[in-house]
Amino acid sequence: MKIKAGIIGGAGYTGGELIRLLIHHPFVTISFIHSRSNAGKPVTDVHADLVGDIDLRFTGEISQDIDVLFLCLGHGESTKFLKETPIDASVKIIDLANDFRLRKDSSQPDINRNFVYGLPELNREAIRKAQNIANPGCFATTIQLGLLPLAKTGVLKEIYTTGITGSTGAGQKLAATSHFSWRANNIQAYKTLTHQHLGEIGESLDQLQPGTEIDLSFVPWRGDFTRGIFISSTITTDLSLEELYFLFEDFYNGHPFTVVSRTPIFLKQIVNTNKAVIQLEKVGTKLVVHSAADNLLKGACGQAVQNMNLVFGLDERAGLNLKPAAF
Amino acid sequence: MKIKAGIIGGAGYTGGELIRLLIHHPFVTISFIHSRSNAGKPVTDVHADLVGDIDLRFTGEISQDIDVLFLCLGHGESTKFLKETPIDASVKIIDLANDFRLRKDSSQPDINRNFVYGLPELNREAIRKAQNIANPGCFATTIQLGLLPLAKTGVLKEIYTTGITGSTGAGQKLAATSHFSWRANNIQAYKTLTHQHLGEIGESLDQLQPGTEIDLSFVPWRGDFTRGIFISSTITTDLSLEELYFLFEDFYNGHPFTVVSRTPIFLKQIVNTNKAVIQLEKVGTKLVVHSAADNLLKGACGQAVQNMNLVFGLDERAGLNLKPAAF
Amino acid sequence: MKIKAGIIGGAGYTGGELIRLLIHHPFVTISFIHSRSNAGKPVTDVHADLVGDIDLRFTGEISQDIDVLFLCLGHGESTKFLKETPIDASVKIIDLANDFRLRKDSSQPDINRNFVYGLPELNREAIRKAQNIANPGCFATTIQLGLLPLAKTGVLKEIYTTGITGSTGAGQKLAATSHFSWRANNIQAYKTLTHQHLGEIGESLDQLQPGTEIDLSFVPWRGDFTRGIFISSTITTDLSLEELYFLFEDFYNGHPFTVVSRTPIFLKQIVNTNKAVIQLEKVGTKLVVHSAADNLLKGACGQAVQNMNLVFGLDERAGLNLKPAAF
Amino acid sequence: MKIKAGIIGGAGYTGGELIRLLIHHPFVTISFIHSRSNAGKPVTDVHADLVGDIDLRFTGEISQDIDVLFLCLGHGESTKFLKETPIDASVKIIDLANDFRLRKDSSQPDINRNFVYGLPELNREAIRKAQNIANPGCFATTIQLGLLPLAKTGVLKEIYTTGITGSTGAGQKLAATSHFSWRANNIQAYKTLTHQHLGEIGESLDQLQPGTEIDLSFVPWRGDFTRGIFISSTITTDLSLEELYFLFEDFYNGHPFTVVSRTPIFLKQIVNTNKAVIQLEKVGTKLVVHSAADNLLKGACGQAVQNMNLVFGLDERAGLNLKPAAF
Repeated sequence: MKIKAGIIGGAGYTGGELIRLLIHHPFVTISFIHSRSNAGKPVTDVHADLVGDIDLRFTGEISQDIDVLFLCLGHGESTKFLKETPIDASVKIIDLANDFRLRKDSSQPDINRNFVYGLPELNREAIRKAQNIANPGCFATTIQLGLLPLAKTGVLKEIYTTGITGSTGAGQKLAATSHFSWRANNIQAYKTLTHQHLGEIGESLDQLQPGTEIDLSFVPWRGDFTRGIFISSTITTDLSLEELYFLFEDFYNGHPFTVVSRTPIFLKQIVNTNKAVIQLEKVGTKLVVHSAADNLLKGACGQAVQNMNLVFGLDERAGLNLKPAAF
Repeated sequence: MKIKAGIIGGAGYTGGELIRLLIHHPFVTISFIHSRSNAGKPVTDVHADLVGDIDLRFTGEISQDIDVLFLCLGHGESTKFLKETPIDASVKIIDLANDFRLRKDSSQPDINRNFVYGLPELNREAIRKAQNIANPGCFATTIQLGLLPLAKTGVLKEIYTTGITGSTGAGQKLAATSHFSWRANNIQAYKTLTHQHLGEIGESLDQLQPGTEIDLSFVPWRGDFTRGIFISSTITTDLSLEELYFLFEDFYNGHPFTVVSRTPIFLKQIVNTNKAVIQLEKVGTKLVVHSAADNLLKGACGQAVQNMNLVFGLDERAGLNLKPAAF
Repeated sequence: MKIKAGIIGGAGYTGGELIRLLIHHPFVTISFIHSRSNAGKPVTDVHADLVGDIDLRFTGEISQDIDVLFLCLGHGESTKFLKETPIDASVKIIDLANDFRLRKDSSQPDINRNFVYGLPELNREAIRKAQNIANPGCFATTIQLGLLPLAKTGVLKEIYTTGITGSTGAGQKLAATSHFSWRANNIQAYKTLTHQHLGEIGESLDQLQPGTEIDLSFVPWRGDFTRGIFISSTITTDLSLEELYFLFEDFYNGHPFTVVSRTPIFLKQIVNTNKAVIQLEKVGTKLVVHSAADNLLKGACGQAVQNMNLVFGLDERAGLNLKPAAF
Repeated sequence: MKIKAGIIGGAGYTGGELIRLLIHHPFVTISFIHSRSNAGKPVTDVHADLVGDIDLRFTGEISQDIDVLFLCLGHGESTKFLKETPIDASVKIIDLANDFRLRKDSSQPDINRNFVYGLPELNREAIRKAQNIANPGCFATTIQLGLLPLAKTGVLKEIYTTGITGSTGAGQKLAATSHFSWRANNIQAYKTLTHQHLGEIGESLDQLQPGTEIDLSFVPWRGDFTRGIFISSTITTDLSLEELYFLFEDFYNGHPFTVVSRTPIFLKQIVNTNKAVIQLEKVGTKLVVHSAADNLLKGACGQAVQNMNLVFGLDERAGLNLKPAAF
């Protein structure tokens, strides 16, 4: 018996990536792919790379005969959707937007559901028991994976983080900053010190290192590539590099998708995979943690499938043994 | 006394590139930069790379106190503009759109002007005497430069041409095929065998090799870079490579911007310059002519300035000694 | 019982890509990965994207306890290897170099094996019965897939082909034309009309359309991307576009990896997949066939696995349901 | 009377870029371009983009009939060169390597010359009187320009800097990290907290803010583009954004190539120009300074020419009115 999955918002970037994963998932069948604006069109009209792989059409209808519903909508749209659309209580929901990630948003009036923050490296046991998942943000995932073992050790205080993201992080909407002629060979900072993922990162750090005022200065950059996030975070600590590596290796032991590396990491190690890689470097009292993940996979749809696997009691890795793009 | 230049459509890609050239041209001063939608704004709001170089603002007014007017409008817009806007007969006009390139369009009812097709390597003497210039298209320029010496020799019959163009050729309008996430690392054919530049190319070949039905099959590709056009044209001929090189070198002798190369050419040789490079290769009876030019310079604004120089009796190279980007 | 595979030349680009495929293949286990220069090192030292996925080390030894041996060596090296290294007659061999592709090379003195040219869309039945496979070249695969239905119909005579390839086609050797500073945003022709794949293409066309002198003028270009090949071939034919589409759809019916598309194709449709896509366009008597494939997958390792599947009687698609990179 | 310039190390990236600038400089003539390994070859054999622009050949000889000598050698090579090669005392020397940048290196035994650190925004008056210039490093220039006004105000203490550089910063030597297949679409940190430019940055900050222990944590990244450096530096300060902008604008008033911007800056604003752009952002007590410059121009050869202009009493901008690449 396969898990029956529905997808809401199937025409966007995360919708498409989720389809790419689910059509080859051994224990899932896609029941419907919903898209208001593309209802009736073949899925391959929008996701042309799936030509030959899928015959489904987008639908404007929602069936309740499903086990799990993925919400691939814009931020704020999930709340609206769930308020307007009755979904059977038995259907599990995995939301890829930021609507339910913060504690204050995890159970909302008019939505009879509690959401668990779906970062398996932080909350795996809670996810296994959850009915509804708030899937973390892409920057949030990549930054947190570089910081969680430090928070657990209680050494965080001031953190200085720079991150760079590929263009798919901004979605498929046309925009001046996504115009090829502008973005090719270009770099720009944006949302300096004010990125919307700071909230969820802060709550996770507080969960592991409660009672400390942790100050995270995050400068995000737009990069001239399509997939992936690369992060360097700098903190001050007296722990030795060897002690730090031990902490990280211990923390991620048993987590199949987060790899602690003692050799220099780079972005393309993880592109088109659900993996995150982490590397540590230390000079004097300064520790730099580098981390990298694919914003559409470990940073979005791959993690959503990982969460689905956990929620349904499957092997965490099912359907996620992806061939890296490598180049 | 400097030449006073006005620019219509100064907020687009060709408008911006023309400004970049004219602000450093030793014999030109920019009188005004017209943009209906940006009137009142600093030019650097749109062309941010000119920050520190120019203090002008876009204007919605047109002054007649100019010597030359550049039309940097969309195709078809130049005709409309000239019909609606009285321009003093003494003002020379250089049109960068395709409105006046074909013989049948070169003198139109309601527009009291005759346009000369502004390809200096073909029409330099006529350009020197011209009052109005129809500046060639970017693909048209790069393809023609690879074929003109062959037409003059009368050997053209069937031509098979493939060309690839940078994204700036499509202008700054947002479009699915200019979205960075789509275009990066991508290639696609478009307007196969039907590109709008075929008409002007055909007329130029006919000018040098009249009376022959020349059949040009042209497949244009979208490339994943911003600037430049690379062309390979294949024909059948019994002429030897040495004879062919002699024909090309002879034809372009004295033309400062078209360089015949006996070593392998490549696109970045000419990026950010007004140069075109040409290379020949021959195996059996098949000749392949490679040619390359920057679509915004030799393929548009650089050639427009070259034409202006000729029209005003200046050194053809004035203001066009550009540092190549090289990388 | 899994198929036991050995890999010779596992440190190169095709070696790495083959490992990426085989580690997730449901019916294969990798027995050893041979690399003379890297013997003893972890595979992830060279293929860093496999970190967390594989614990094997390169070996300098060759075990005979295998079912299939993949040769991922430089061109000419496979012959040398097989002459110097006794391999049990029972072991099937799949050679990814060009050593055995041509009829004259398919059975060589001192090598007691006959090689079948491994293009499934042309030779599927012969491959199923073969003991040894000569895996086609990347350009050869992508060009042939665009031409085979035309050869079968007997309409080929003069073909004008331009193709562009990603940098991985040139392997991991350092070279001036693979230096990032040179290749980024660049295009260059190379091996004009003399590419080494012309031989195998010619033999395949002759197999389907014997007795015709077919003249293929092929201009290959270096592209500024890492993966993929895009081809446009132009021929003259009186067949209508509808007739042509019917021929292509009929020819590829039942071949799971070659997709005939009636909408515009583009390179990234197939990047990181084993698929090829084909599109036809016709104006007057000129037909242009566009085709695209990933040079490392359908153009090399994916096709090698497809051939292995056929040779061992497996589903042709086993282990090849790859998630497209898409972006 | 033109300034006669000699170039040592003319076949490298900085050598080539210097030639690109000097051939169009109104007051300079190139006397010779020295390259040991390329002596006798046309300059265009190595710098193919200069085809049609220059007829010179590399030489193995050094003439003393020059006014200025540019050293474009690898780090450490300039010292060796000057010790081995007698250069007339009257010849001014501009060294682009890091041999003479630090105070302790600025006058060395066996080299009868004192070098002034050639950052015009810091040392313009000293440069005007100098005989020998130590041209700053590319990262050093871009980082310093973002920090100098803060040092002058005395507010620096802890600085957290991340920077990204194009591939040309690593020179033309072939290397695994400059292989296109690796570097395209990739990001990697390198020399974390240990970059060799920290020394010269530290001395400049100390010059303006003496007596403070300033702690600069710098994480450099390799970027997937060819030209340019983008920097974000974070510090803590109580000064308001308006006060800070005033300090920066005041500091750079009269410096033609450093532009303080109140709108978001981006890398391509300055590519192929000698300009640097700076932008400030403030949230709470955290100030982020973004700065960008072209590593080969303001970060190397453009600044070398700017220094030459100052040394010879010319307009600082002579020969440096470059057309931005823009795209």
